[in-house]
Amino acid sequence: MEAYLDNSATTPLCNEAIDKMNYALKNCWGNPSSLHANGIAASQLLEESRQIIANRLSCETDEIVFTSGGTESNNIAIFGAANAMKRRGSRIITTSIEHSSVEEPIKSLEAQGFDVIRLRVGENGVIDERQLFAAVNPSVVLISMMLVNNEIGSVQPVEFARKAVTHAGAGNAIIHCDAVQAFGKIQLKPYNMGVDLMSISSHKIHGPKGAGALFIKKGTRLAQHNMGGLQENKIRPGTEPMPAIAGFGGAASVIPDYRESLSHATALRDYMVSKLSAMDSIVINSPKNALPYVTNISVLGIPSEVMLNYLSEMGIYVSSGSACAKGHKSKVLRAMNLSEDRANTAIRISISHRTTREEIDYLLFGIVNAQKTMRKLK
Amino acid sequence: MEAYLDNSATTPLCNEAIDKMNYALKNCWGNPSSLHANGIAASQLLEESRQIIANRLSCETDEIVFTSGGTESNNIAIFGAANAMKRRGSRIITTSIEHSSVEEPIKSLEAQGFDVIRLRVGENGVIDERQLFAAVNPSVVLISMMLVNNEIGSVQPVEFARKAVTHAGAGNAIIHCDAVQAFGKIQLKPYNMGVDLMSISSHKIHGPKGAGALFIKKGTRLAQHNMGGLQENKIRPGTEPMPAIAGFGGAASVIPDYRESLSHATALRDYMVSKLSAMDSIVINSPKNALPYVTNISVLGIPSEVMLNYLSEMGIYVSSGSACAKGHKSKVLRAMNLSEDRANTAIRISISHRTTREEIDYLLFGIVNAQKTMRKLK
Repeated sequence: MEAYLDNSATTPLCNEAIDKMNYALKNCWGNPSSLHANGIAASQLLEESRQIIANRLSCETDEIVFTSGGTESNNIAIFGAANAMKRRGSRIITTSIEHSSVEEPIKSLEAQGFDVIRLRVGENGVIDERQLFAAVNPSVVLISMMLVNNEIGSVQPVEFARKAVTHAGAGNAIIHCDAVQAFGKIQLKPYNMGVDLMSISSHKIHGPKGAGALFIKKGTRLAQHNMGGLQENKIRPGTEPMPAIAGFGGAASVIPDYRESLSHATALRDYMVSKLSAMDSIVINSPKNALPYVTNISVLGIPSEVMLNYLSEMGIYVSSGSACAKGHKSKVLRAMNLSEDRANTAIRISISHRTTREEIDYLLFGIVNAQKTMRKLK
Repeated sequence: MEAYLDNSATTPLCNEAIDKMNYALKNCWGNPSSLHANGIAASQLLEESRQIIANRLSCETDEIVFTSGGTESNNIAIFGAANAMKRRGSRIITTSIEHSSVEEPIKSLEAQGFDVIRLRVGENGVIDERQLFAAVNPSVVLISMMLVNNEIGSVQPVEFARKAVTHAGAGNAIIHCDAVQAFGKIQLKPYNMGVDLMSISSHKIHGPKGAGALFIKKGTRLAQHNMGGLQENKIRPGTEPMPAIAGFGGAASVIPDYRESLSHATALRDYMVSKLSAMDSIVINSPKNALPYVTNISVLGIPSEVMLNYLSEMGIYVSSGSACAKGHKSKVLRAMNLSEDRANTAIRISISHRTTREEIDYLLFGIVNAQKTMRKLK
């Protein structure tokens, strides 16, 4: 038996993604920029994927730029917006729990002279909207906020960013949202959220690694970050990673209705949390209002790596935090002011619409066994 | 019958690439940064590809950074080197016939204040080594030269860059080589060439689009261009595009011996050129010493797009220049001072070790037919 409960790190591929990729690899391998029939066929497959993604975000196809993944989308968005706007102001507002691919570009802009405000989150993993309003002034050029946090599942009130900039008369400010962990899991309409730029990724929705997209609202000014050919409106030059984009389209075409996913995940999470709460030495770190897809817990007394390895031996896959940080201490838990003991014993259980109750039961069995084994060793 | 003669734009995938990708998609889809068994398996597949590429370049595995393709490799190299070295000097030397993913980043650095020297090429499509030596002074921080040109097949004397910087006492200068069109086609040893950075791409060697690599000689300083997680030594953060990297490894593992490829391509090219030379109104634009993989010709009187479409209808695929420029006029032919008439009627025929004599015969048949048809229309 296996239980893959690390869906925030990556997901197994759905058949639709594998099939579309194989079609691209075997029957439609042309260069989408080539002007002959072989290239035109590839270009049509590319545009088919773009239409699927645009439909999912309720936007126009020319507002979707394909990238090689979430990190590239975030880099293009952050550097592109800040560099396009730097003559208009210098303030950037973000939160203290962003993914490193937003955090690091903003740090680099700060070193170049931008005035960066990092909004703190409370124990609920959410910023205080009043602090957001207080931070916005007419010099704001960029606000970047993650929608669903990858480590604890908390949801930021991103829609308040537009209200705050309008209120402060900073209407030109560009609003970016890292929605990598939200896409396919909740309703996602950048227009309704007042967002100008939104990053999404393929391999978090049962698509392949190597494809992502950036929604760019019509009229949004972006400076080029990568340069070269004419592809993707010059915002992401280079031959499009077609097999991955085709697979991204395939995966996006079969995302279940978000209400179904949410109710499935909520039932599993509630079941798991009720069982965990009845066990010894377990604390739930994810806030109560977190999305059900990510549940961060601490098994007090058992260091994260030890638990992770123990479970891995049993075929149960969870993580100690963001995969991109490869075992480094979680800055999100630190930002939430968790005690050292809780932070050092934290594990992240992340599920998808494909996760089963049997997998959750196997995880619970694994944790109980780990606790017994460790007790004996003491 | 079909004849795919646009291998410099992209190549059909070999079975080894497709098989490795499917293994990655179906059996090894984990996140290589995940610490559990599922992630470790993906990490092993990643390192297997790295070993194959390192062997091909006769370098160490920790000198290979995987990217999403040639354009990303070139952007990371050019911006990374210039920004790491900007306190040491301001001169960048390049040529007038680089790919846009080298040309555009350098233009952007020029706008920031770098002093850019663009070496001209002669009718043979090659720079004059004396001009290279004359351009190098102690303020040089970066020299970037393409090894094999994508439009005409000419080969630059890249090995002279190291000699020139040593001669001028500019030993700290970083030497970058865009070897995207050379990899898999000629012997390629960056150490022997005195090169610090070398870009290569998967989809030009019968591998998938969406993967490339940058050779970074041990000790070479590069500023980060993209920022985020800890992957690829922080030089290319973000989850690795695994299925494509696995396919890249698969394709690289079956590259034929370069002597075999060269002799196969030379025989085909010589046969084709001898036939073309006997035909009316055809001029060969590629220099005599060009590699046999790329042959640029002009069919006088028939505009490139017209010829391209005519041949495409017959299932013969060639191009009018770089695919990345999508039909725009060739800057390489302009740099060679070709007449308007020749430049407007140029087509590029690019072959691989898989191209057959039957395909060449079909192309010759297609060109003859095109000439007949156009004559009738006049």
